[in-house]
Amino acid sequence: MTDSEEKPIEFGAESSVPKAVVNRLSLYLRELQHLIRDGRETTSSTFLGARLGLTDAQVRKDLAYFGQFGHPGIGYRCPELVQEIRRILGTHRQWRVAIVGLGNLGTALVGHRGFSEQGFRVVAAFDTDLTKVDRKIHETPIYHIDRLPQIVQEEEIKLGIIAVPAASAQIVADALVSAGVEGLLNFAPVTISVPEGVSIVGVDLAIELEQLSFNVVNRQ
Amino acid sequence: MTDSEEKPIEFGAESSVPKAVVNRLSLYLRELQHLIRDGRETTSSTFLGARLGLTDAQVRKDLAYFGQFGHPGIGYRCPELVQEIRRILGTHRQWRVAIVGLGNLGTALVGHRGFSEQGFRVVAAFDTDLTKVDRKIHETPIYHIDRLPQIVQEEEIKLGIIAVPAASAQIVADALVSAGVEGLLNFAPVTISVPEGVSIVGVDLAIELEQLSFNVVNRQ
Repeated sequence: MTDSEEKPIEFGAESSVPKAVVNRLSLYLRELQHLIRDGRETTSSTFLGARLGLTDAQVRKDLAYFGQFGHPGIGYRCPELVQEIRRILGTHRQWRVAIVGLGNLGTALVGHRGFSEQGFRVVAAFDTDLTKVDRKIHETPIYHIDRLPQIVQEEEIKLGIIAVPAASAQIVADALVSAGVEGLLNFAPVTISVPEGVSIVGVDLAIELEQLSFNVVNRQ
Repeated sequence: MTDSEEKPIEFGAESSVPKAVVNRLSLYLRELQHLIRDGRETTSSTFLGARLGLTDAQVRKDLAYFGQFGHPGIGYRCPELVQEIRRILGTHRQWRVAIVGLGNLGTALVGHRGFSEQGFRVVAAFDTDLTKVDRKIHETPIYHIDRLPQIVQEEEIKLGIIAVPAASAQIVADALVSAGVEGLLNFAPVTISVPEGVSIVGVDLAIELEQLSFNVVNRQ
């Protein structure tokens, strides 16, 4: 049973790569981006692993799902591996993203620098509040929710971020999917159903605090 | 190398349990909480695994790190397993939490229902903006940052959430640690150093979008 961790965790059966591996690709990408910023040209699975608390074997195994990226006697070329990982994650292209719901969370997300840095461009935000619409925040235009079908199509938006209260989340998801969005990131504390062919990732911020709690408790 | 996933990912050497396992504990906990809400008394590793796209062997192996929780002929008793997982994560007790930085993100986090539901009580918020302090949001009092050392001690705050801009994040972390906080959740897009004996978890929201992007791209 030692290999059961590596059994595919199917996220809607669209991939045979374990979810945990895809998650670590993002961590490798961040670390490589830091290394490049620090002026490093190359790195190794040992160095990369050490920065993330992983063995070098784990790093090599994760990357081997997608190809052969090392160079004998050199290791990994940082800019090249960044490009490869972005290609795998699909962030070598720019994604056009909509955010629905401009409460505090939605408003914070519209201005989140980390999104644009990684290839996610928030090109539209939607709300029902008439005092919020027809303005811009952080250069992102805000539209009334009634215009969602039209704007999603015109702006060729493929990803939607749901930042509305739980009670409205499913309605918003349905509207986004009908308009042509292919992936949803859900911050509402509720489970959302989507038709086959649409991906959904739920964000549960309490999980991060639970991981922190575990660390603190098991440190003593 | 098939077992390399299960090699301990040391989060500051405080534990020999792989980080991915601790993360899944949170997912099991949520699923069990849903099952209880739906009126279910018992469940199985097969059922629990199926809901999360994991094998039954994986579920059993993960839980076996911490003890023996199943009952022959019954499976898992949902309320009992919830209690056990909360004990392992350290959320059977209530954590007193402070949030520093009341921009849109910090303000959204103060009111985040998901935190209190899982045992995290935000008892204080801090900001430098004099127009924000000495008020309450969602019953949480807001203090000027100068009062942080005093309030953290008086309120016995053990966890801190950093929601300030990158440039102030390290200063805020130092202040929280000096005041006695043992764990930090960092939303600022910057790496923070903490002394040994203090845990830190960084939140990178772009990772969630990257996972979504991967799902969408690999679906076709």
